[in-house]
Amino acid sequence: MRDFVIVGHIAKTTPDFSLEDLPGTSGRIDVLCRCVNSAFMLSHGIRRDVRCHLILMGGPEPKILRFDGSRLRHLNPDERSTAALIKRALSIDASPSWRESTPGIYIRKGDLRSLLESLRDEGQRLYYLREDGAPLSESVSDGVFVLGDHTGMTGDEEHLLDSMGAETVSIGPLSLHADHCIVIVNWMCDNAALRR
Amino acid sequence: MRDFVIVGHIAKTTPDFSLEDLPGTSGRIDVLCRCVNSAFMLSHGIRRDVRCHLILMGGPEPKILRFDGSRLRHLNPDERSTAALIKRALSIDASPSWRESTPGIYIRKGDLRSLLESLRDEGQRLYYLREDGAPLSESVSDGVFVLGDHTGMTGDEEHLLDSMGAETVSIGPLSLHADHCIVIVNWMCDNAALRR
Repeated sequence: MRDFVIVGHIAKTTPDFSLEDLPGTSGRIDVLCRCVNSAFMLSHGIRRDVRCHLILMGGPEPKILRFDGSRLRHLNPDERSTAALIKRALSIDASPSWRESTPGIYIRKGDLRSLLESLRDEGQRLYYLREDGAPLSESVSDGVFVLGDHTGMTGDEEHLLDSMGAETVSIGPLSLHADHCIVIVNWMCDNAALRR
Repeated sequence: MRDFVIVGHIAKTTPDFSLEDLPGTSGRIDVLCRCVNSAFMLSHGIRRDVRCHLILMGGPEPKILRFDGSRLRHLNPDERSTAALIKRALSIDASPSWRESTPGIYIRKGDLRSLLESLRDEGQRLYYLREDGAPLSESVSDGVFVLGDHTGMTGDEEHLLDSMGAETVSIGPLSLHADHCIVIVNWMCDNAALRR
């Protein structure tokens, strides 16, 4: 399984934002929409073996959205329609357990720690993407890849990742947008899988 | 110089489309907006050594938009604001010569052939991205990279590229969206430049 985790530090946890002005009203949910596109979109379909998790922290109680490629439907490449799916998920009553909003899109209350613990319990290896990490091995084809949004990760989050045994890895010295990093990680993992 | 050329076969050549429904009303200018994002966006600025050309063919007379990183301003990562810049460029009276619409964004009448001839005359090497091409060499850091939109390239366009000496290159066997291909080509070219 290939998992992406993106932390949206100011992303709204309620659906009261405008699809006409995502960057201005949603707490940069546009950034997260582009990450979802990068995680799943292929020319002739979507990646069924990928999950993408968005942690929305711009509210009193953080929420986690899970996009599960194995069941995902109604996903289009444009930002606005993905934002509409997120808006719909945010309109349902979230609990500490996953609830499905539309096919393949789930929401629950929770933070980065609770998500990483559950993914680690599945036996997944954790990777934290940062420019100055060790080069991501060309043999990696799966795992949990954690990325910050446009503001990067906080010191506390980096400490958490470290304490959970996440490996800090880099795909190069240039600082790239999270959605571009996801494209490259998918491509590197595809290549690793092909070489097997 | 690193140039990207994306052919938008149904992209409107007039500004009468809705920013609220780009995929439905613009002839998939949303696809082209994502390509512009991929060509230029870095975490802390934009790529100054890149140009991105969009060929809009969804009208009686095709038009070419040039985004020149060396002068580009007002570019944000979201699709809608890029589409607004394109809309503004399409509202000016285009001639066979470049006219600047907003800083770093130019428009003229013209087709793929006229653009490729002008780029070749600058001494640039032409690469056509296709899944079944020869692997793109890891030493390439510059050149003109030509990509199709969501419909791919026509037989006539492939013949034109061939006749102009374009090398057909591949970045892998999976068929990826044009904007994802641009992210990967930028990354590969960055790596080639770093290795020098």
